[in-house]
Amino acid sequence: MANEEKFVEDIVDQDDNFSMWYNQIVRKAELADYAPVRGCMIIRPYGYAIWENIQKGLDERFKETGVENAYFPLLIPQSFLTKEAEHVEGFAPEVAWVTRGGGEELEEPLAIRPTSETIIGHSFSKWIQSYRDLPLLINQWSNVVRWEKRTALFLRTSEFLWQEGHTAHRTLEEAEERTMQMLNVYRKFAEEEAAIPVIAGRKSENEKFAGALRTYSIEAMMGDGKALQSATSHNLGNNFAKGFDIQFLDADGQRKYCATTSWGLSTRMIGGLIMVHGDKSGLIIPPRLAPHQVVIVPIWRKEKERGIVEEQVDRVEKLLRANKIRVKVDRSDNTPGWKYNEWEMRGVPVRMEIGPRDVQNNSVMLVRRDNRVKEPVSVDALETRLPQLLDEVQQGLYDRALAFREENTFRTESYDEFKEIIEKRGFARVKWAEDTAAELAIKEETKATLRVIPFDQPEGGVQGKCIYTGKPATCEAIFARSY
Amino acid sequence: MANEEKFVEDIVDQDDNFSMWYNQIVRKAELADYAPVRGCMIIRPYGYAIWENIQKGLDERFKETGVENAYFPLLIPQSFLTKEAEHVEGFAPEVAWVTRGGGEELEEPLAIRPTSETIIGHSFSKWIQSYRDLPLLINQWSNVVRWEKRTALFLRTSEFLWQEGHTAHRTLEEAEERTMQMLNVYRKFAEEEAAIPVIAGRKSENEKFAGALRTYSIEAMMGDGKALQSATSHNLGNNFAKGFDIQFLDADGQRKYCATTSWGLSTRMIGGLIMVHGDKSGLIIPPRLAPHQVVIVPIWRKEKERGIVEEQVDRVEKLLRANKIRVKVDRSDNTPGWKYNEWEMRGVPVRMEIGPRDVQNNSVMLVRRDNRVKEPVSVDALETRLPQLLDEVQQGLYDRALAFREENTFRTESYDEFKEIIEKRGFARVKWAEDTAAELAIKEETKATLRVIPFDQPEGGVQGKCIYTGKPATCEAIFARSY
Repeated sequence: MANEEKFVEDIVDQDDNFSMWYNQIVRKAELADYAPVRGCMIIRPYGYAIWENIQKGLDERFKETGVENAYFPLLIPQSFLTKEAEHVEGFAPEVAWVTRGGGEELEEPLAIRPTSETIIGHSFSKWIQSYRDLPLLINQWSNVVRWEKRTALFLRTSEFLWQEGHTAHRTLEEAEERTMQMLNVYRKFAEEEAAIPVIAGRKSENEKFAGALRTYSIEAMMGDGKALQSATSHNLGNNFAKGFDIQFLDADGQRKYCATTSWGLSTRMIGGLIMVHGDKSGLIIPPRLAPHQVVIVPIWRKEKERGIVEEQVDRVEKLLRANKIRVKVDRSDNTPGWKYNEWEMRGVPVRMEIGPRDVQNNSVMLVRRDNRVKEPVSVDALETRLPQLLDEVQQGLYDRALAFREENTFRTESYDEFKEIIEKRGFARVKWAEDTAAELAIKEETKATLRVIPFDQPEGGVQGKCIYTGKPATCEAIFARSY
Repeated sequence: MANEEKFVEDIVDQDDNFSMWYNQIVRKAELADYAPVRGCMIIRPYGYAIWENIQKGLDERFKETGVENAYFPLLIPQSFLTKEAEHVEGFAPEVAWVTRGGGEELEEPLAIRPTSETIIGHSFSKWIQSYRDLPLLINQWSNVVRWEKRTALFLRTSEFLWQEGHTAHRTLEEAEERTMQMLNVYRKFAEEEAAIPVIAGRKSENEKFAGALRTYSIEAMMGDGKALQSATSHNLGNNFAKGFDIQFLDADGQRKYCATTSWGLSTRMIGGLIMVHGDKSGLIIPPRLAPHQVVIVPIWRKEKERGIVEEQVDRVEKLLRANKIRVKVDRSDNTPGWKYNEWEMRGVPVRMEIGPRDVQNNSVMLVRRDNRVKEPVSVDALETRLPQLLDEVQQGLYDRALAFREENTFRTESYDEFKEIIEKRGFARVKWAEDTAAELAIKEETKATLRVIPFDQPEGGVQGKCIYTGKPATCEAIFARSY
């Protein structure tokens, strides 16, 4: 047992040092590694399998709304980036530049895409002629590069993977509708697949995307009370259409600028689910995104028991696969105790133990990762019970995360109390008068940023004064420290 | 009808100018476009949907052999590329270099990956400790950049999409087995999904991958008789293991170098299927990879017929979707004739016409894209007949491509005749003594390259003299001009 204890001891306590806990989990669970190039990451098979499940779930939801996938170049001419003034200002400091290719200095440096509004805008201007070509609904799965000084695996790396959707519309209203529709896709995905409760709302002027008319986001609370922006959806208005001449001939014979949108979700989401669901034993992956939904641990003491156990394990494995349950059998030479610890640490939602007595009873022992509850189940009942149990774990994780967020969200009208909340842990929900200077002052004083102005506002409007300026409040806003 | 004729007239005849035909098809079918960055391409939704089907088909086959996906960084330190001498020599002229990032000059330039043997080798050296960690079977779906002077959409662009598999093994024999196994995956994929007959074999020393012990490939004949290397699989021996110190502790207590492999297939495959199957009316996409397997064209003359036709079209569309057939209904305002031409040009394997009389008979008219054969089918029989018909088209395409290749493959023992074959069109299959100088001389004199030394060799060995040197032949080899 010495080995097993050591295994767990190696992980620091979440409450002592959350970010160290996070880093240890990412490395020990073999989700990702730092690359030899500073700030870049290697996504290992177990981490990438989560990303594949995220991709599958999101891609289906996008396509249901009429979106098609395409692929645009990695490299963007310098002149493109400068066409939308706010955009270039926002991204210029983060860009990596290609200056040599094929043995020669390039005439014009090429940016590695930090995002693709500009190069996609250029294509849209060629593809769109008339209102019949609208709406144009495109998504791209790709890598992007944004040079980062301070990095954390999945959360902030110089290269990351994401999807970026880009759409063009006839009217600003239609663009606004699409912006909200995609935010809603993200919200449902986060809640239903990642079991992460999120707050949907609008970003402040200060926090919006460089070049957007309005940015919306979903914000989640991590296990240390900090916020993570989990996805964003931007109404770009006519800004990029004007920069890239995306015009269409309308039914009335007039040439008009399109209204465009963009929206994205990245490998950050993996960081989010680690920090929302993990506990002191390690990772907990929600069943719908888990690479292995069930891990089977065969148990025997005497060599003569081995045959019947292995036979039953094979039978059960086949049964689960036939039922489209993602199952892993740990056939390694490690002890059962070691395997329990390892797969707990790696967050498999349900463990299945099969020993000689279980074989005799034609049953298995199921153990939930989230609350350790054990449940013997007859093999004949597995096909119905196991999917139910996975749903229960999925729901249990969501409920727990929601309860945690509620417990750590505080309303206050006092700025002193506000500072205490931020210093201690959690979200502060306060009355707000939408003032960038005040927002920056709060950031300076507390390191908290305005995460989101939730859609969910008091009925009949907000009464009272802004927590910082004392001016009449126009809305409620959520402040928190964030990743 | 003027419009429709114009539509077809726009495409040049394959026999007059094959490469112009190819370019026109790629652009008109909206598969891809040139990007504003020289030599890069934009893969449009219709082209990307083919790539998604290729990915899906290949990914399943990889995973069945135990391969897992992962993701490695885009950027590679200069020092890595130089660790394997042949490798750097092969790739250095094609590399794009990042020299500035985050507003500063970088201390060491970073290469955009032209391929990832080096950066993956570096990870493997950290992940592999003992023989228990082997084999390590990894694949990556990604973009790569190789600076190209002469470019053609899908066939040769400065950035392209691909998958690159990388594996590490205990012995050279095991690496060789894996190399052959993956070549076989590609061969079956090409034949069964892309309906492209391929010749599997070994590359000459001159044509092998930079840094490989041996390279195997599958070669296909395009519609103009030229060859396209459709996928490659490399046995890297210990070369990269030595360069990157990929060692393991074997069961006998000795530290040993791993043997590694790599294998890849790219968006070139899309170029291949265009050039193998297309005809003078445009593209023909094999049903298993077609974004739309069936296009439904509703037909009516009088407005009063429209309702019953549309109702039936909706019903049939639902029926096909329920049967997992990828169906597109062209509900645009264009004339039926225009639609026929458009979807023929875009290569949809089966067209379904539904007019008022068809509705009355509860039947539809099916038209095969490959041979234009028409077949009325009762709606009640569609669920069984349509999948059959799609299989027949799939097989028909394969058979036609195979017959074409056979007709245009010539055996000769005379170098003069060899030159005529190459000049006219096709593959020359000749006796060969494996001599790089002779190979280069033939290339110089005829522009033909040694495509592959097929696995399929005469029983009992090759008798006779090398076509060029007159030395005793050691094998039969296939020469052709190529893309």
